[in-house]
Amino acid sequence: MKTRKPDARPGEFELIEKLFAPLARNAPGALGLGDDVAVLAPPAGVDVLLKTDAIVESVDFFREDPADLVAQKALRVNLSDLAAKGAEPAGYLLTLFLPEWPDLGWLESFAQGLARDQAEFGLSLMGGDMSSTPGPLAVSVSAYGFVPSGAMIRRAGARAGDCVFVSGTIGDSGGGLSVLKGEALAAEHQHLITRYRTPQPRLALGRALRGVASAALDVSDGLLADLGHLARASGVAISIDATRIPLSADLMSLWGDDLDARCRAAAAGDDYEIAFAAPSAARDAVMAVARQVGVAVSEIGRVEEGQGVRLLDVAGREIPVPHKGFTHF
Amino acid sequence: MKTRKPDARPGEFELIEKLFAPLARNAPGALGLGDDVAVLAPPAGVDVLLKTDAIVESVDFFREDPADLVAQKALRVNLSDLAAKGAEPAGYLLTLFLPEWPDLGWLESFAQGLARDQAEFGLSLMGGDMSSTPGPLAVSVSAYGFVPSGAMIRRAGARAGDCVFVSGTIGDSGGGLSVLKGEALAAEHQHLITRYRTPQPRLALGRALRGVASAALDVSDGLLADLGHLARASGVAISIDATRIPLSADLMSLWGDDLDARCRAAAAGDDYEIAFAAPSAARDAVMAVARQVGVAVSEIGRVEEGQGVRLLDVAGREIPVPHKGFTHF
Repeated sequence: MKTRKPDARPGEFELIEKLFAPLARNAPGALGLGDDVAVLAPPAGVDVLLKTDAIVESVDFFREDPADLVAQKALRVNLSDLAAKGAEPAGYLLTLFLPEWPDLGWLESFAQGLARDQAEFGLSLMGGDMSSTPGPLAVSVSAYGFVPSGAMIRRAGARAGDCVFVSGTIGDSGGGLSVLKGEALAAEHQHLITRYRTPQPRLALGRALRGVASAALDVSDGLLADLGHLARASGVAISIDATRIPLSADLMSLWGDDLDARCRAAAAGDDYEIAFAAPSAARDAVMAVARQVGVAVSEIGRVEEGQGVRLLDVAGREIPVPHKGFTHF
Repeated sequence: MKTRKPDARPGEFELIEKLFAPLARNAPGALGLGDDVAVLAPPAGVDVLLKTDAIVESVDFFREDPADLVAQKALRVNLSDLAAKGAEPAGYLLTLFLPEWPDLGWLESFAQGLARDQAEFGLSLMGGDMSSTPGPLAVSVSAYGFVPSGAMIRRAGARAGDCVFVSGTIGDSGGGLSVLKGEALAAEHQHLITRYRTPQPRLALGRALRGVASAALDVSDGLLADLGHLARASGVAISIDATRIPLSADLMSLWGDDLDARCRAAAAGDDYEIAFAAPSAARDAVMAVARQVGVAVSEIGRVEEGQGVRLLDVAGREIPVPHKGFTHF
């Protein structure tokens, strides 16, 4: 592996001034990244939601990935959590564990990715930390956002009788990863690779689901694993109809659309869609919200008494799923 | 290097439930670590201060260091920043980049270190993230605390004519590191090693300096480097009298007490003391504060018109200091 000389890029403080301070320019509380801390003066009547998530080279992204997309992924996996809770993102802290190989060009592109997403999602860099490391490169983000006091959509609100929904399509990111690992020709599956590299936090949907959804979370570990988290937090069981799990045409062209493909999609993870429950009486309200924000929402199952999550075939028989989602170890 | 098998410890979710959820028990907003985010409802009339800082194996600590001390260092380097700003710590998010080698015993000790500091400093784990990594082990903390609105002590408030002070003694941590690297016998310099491994955030001092200090920051990069940051933020120059830099008896027994030792101490870093400025009319108030909180405070220099930081000998001549402090690259 080629390593570049450290003098191929400016020092820590020059990098902060040149690349990162401009990202904090519009937030008075960031103090131009020139103090030890950021100052957050939350508006009255809101709760502040805090989330931290990290991505690691060779685990969550590849060294060959475009640097701007690495930055956007690091930010968006956090925004996706804020989205699922109904929050409006406001700011973030950035920690960069930096080996020697990223040169100034890589870091400039990384900062450009952040700038683009700050403009798109309306938040600002508020502070951060850069550490040298023997490797791998890692990016940790702590993001925060606001919801009206008490309006956060929790994991723990699902009740037996509720319907279960998911936004977008499931498995695309897992498909993209399998393509990048050589399962198929990348040129034929660019959409899936984009879904892997660039999550779309469903912020408008999450905000519109406040007061409509009884429970929600974002799909990162895998649809079944995450609904398992939601079921456990709510003290309920969840049944999912495999045939109703929404798959994209691109994913079906890669994996097919039989039960095996659906099981694989439901355990793949990195979807960054919102899975949520809502009372059956709110079904029309859910679909109205989906139309209003322009995001497809599919009803995929129901909440029942009991515990655990089950995947069912068309005859209502449980499909054994040995591996329901991603765990780090 | 011996690596342990991953099955020597429980999986990610079991670790969270067993070791980390108990650390969040007393904070309702942590939601038992069972949701996607933490909820922070700041009291009225406060600003929330946010800080993130990370430590990396082989850079900021050693694999052989006791795990509870690694945890405490990760937390305390953040608390030290909150202290210097006059804040009361309230909570933190924890990100753990975990290679295969730490076994359950290591992680239990790590959690015990956090528990001890939570009790001592009155804050709570609010959320976090665990990522597997090929290594090195790294710990990123994002801590937050509260100050009365507008009362944060900034870097940018020093004015020409102010006096410059520092708490405690300088260079001990650097001395401890040099001992750990083999410069002297560890058994003879346990105090210095403790100072390296276990920073003491000066929280009571920082709070008491609100309204007294004109500017402050914690000493982490090195006394001269950090006073350079303060001078730049305030648009002033700072002169430090080398002979007034407080050295501990232990450090003098290692490095001596000549000018070379003082230069080395002033650039060593990792002190986690508070360096601050205050109007000369507030000198008595500063010393009263120091007595009240039981922390030694030394007057070491003054703020002047101009820019930069200078180290002076007894005759007032500038001492050339080629390397004023630590930078990551």
